[in-house]
Amino acid sequence: MTTAMRNQAAILFDLDGTLVDSVYQHVLAWRRALFDQGFDLSAWRIHRRVGMSGGLLVHALGRELGHEFSASQVEEVQAAHTRYFHEAGDTVRPLPGASHLLQELSRRHVPVAVATSGTRETAGASLGSLGLGPEVPVVTRDEVPFAKPDPDLFLAAADRLGASIGNCIVVGDSIWDILAARRAGALGVGLLSGGYSRQELEVAGAFRVYQDPAAMEVRLEELGIRM
Amino acid sequence: MTTAMRNQAAILFDLDGTLVDSVYQHVLAWRRALFDQGFDLSAWRIHRRVGMSGGLLVHALGRELGHEFSASQVEEVQAAHTRYFHEAGDTVRPLPGASHLLQELSRRHVPVAVATSGTRETAGASLGSLGLGPEVPVVTRDEVPFAKPDPDLFLAAADRLGASIGNCIVVGDSIWDILAARRAGALGVGLLSGGYSRQELEVAGAFRVYQDPAAMEVRLEELGIRM
Repeated sequence: MTTAMRNQAAILFDLDGTLVDSVYQHVLAWRRALFDQGFDLSAWRIHRRVGMSGGLLVHALGRELGHEFSASQVEEVQAAHTRYFHEAGDTVRPLPGASHLLQELSRRHVPVAVATSGTRETAGASLGSLGLGPEVPVVTRDEVPFAKPDPDLFLAAADRLGASIGNCIVVGDSIWDILAARRAGALGVGLLSGGYSRQELEVAGAFRVYQDPAAMEVRLEELGIRM
Repeated sequence: MTTAMRNQAAILFDLDGTLVDSVYQHVLAWRRALFDQGFDLSAWRIHRRVGMSGGLLVHALGRELGHEFSASQVEEVQAAHTRYFHEAGDTVRPLPGASHLLQELSRRHVPVAVATSGTRETAGASLGSLGLGPEVPVVTRDEVPFAKPDPDLFLAAADRLGASIGNCIVVGDSIWDILAARRAGALGVGLLSGGYSRQELEVAGAFRVYQDPAAMEVRLEELGIRM
């Protein structure tokens, strides 16, 4: 890529914990769903898996318990998670500055997409609360074979924007976002708004770490996003 | 203190996130209570304050918003938090190995106490679920002038055991436990079961960090607790 050919960077956002304040509700919804199946998983262990695909999360937690979940058990846990998460629905709100950041990026003509390990069903209300414009593609777990930490979601999102993945900045709150960004060949920016610590995100390879969308907007120039 | 005079170490446990899996419920209860008063605080910011006294937490979060809470507002927020936390009551359960660890310490004749920034009212059910013996003193926020990160709770707990604080090991999941331990002159041991990262607890000064009570029991010898 020569300098003359270089395009404006595109930004690929994770959803939960990055644009909407929903991680803690997801944690407790997974916890209740697993408990219904007889598995008493600690909330912190679930927290550290949220952001990866729901199927992977259940299998990974099962392995910590020394239990192999069957495909039908995984489905039941996922269905119960969706149900419990919807119960918390009205407490899920955009993170500070999320909508404003998206507007500001649009004003600066920065291509933006959203890529989430969640399903269209669990993500719907959150996406609605952000007031995304029609120019913002959204890729959900239903649309790719493998969710994070596999790179597929971010690759598909870059594709929708017609952007080269090497020219994309992935923004996420979990180490699965940062790992998936690295696997895809994009830069990963971490936000603390999902409850991971700065060090966990840095150790995973985050290029920069900000508190939340509002704090990121103040520092857009650090990412080479110009007025 | 000469070697000949040295007594068996005593252990002072925090409650929420250390012996019971309740931090995420507390986070969402505080979030709803603050929202009722018109303050939309992100869950992760609340998470990082849980474990300090409720009054301090509200004032600290208010300062982040540039708002000064009145004494009556603080009281209202605390009352609403208690109400919302009770709603989640049946999902609050002991952390893996908590009761077993307490039994094992009793078997090894290690004096043990519990010291929590929570009130007797919010802590009651959690304490009940642990099946604490009558020999385990419990100090709650109601009984001391200042809760964590002030050292008063741990000093009072050591006092109840007739133990010298310099011979106590404080076990907690939040940096407020570790800071209060250091201020009191005790060693602080961190557990990951409240959702802080290992690095945050180490940077706060934790002597050792374990995943949860079950993991701590396997490594009791590292703390000089002998069979």
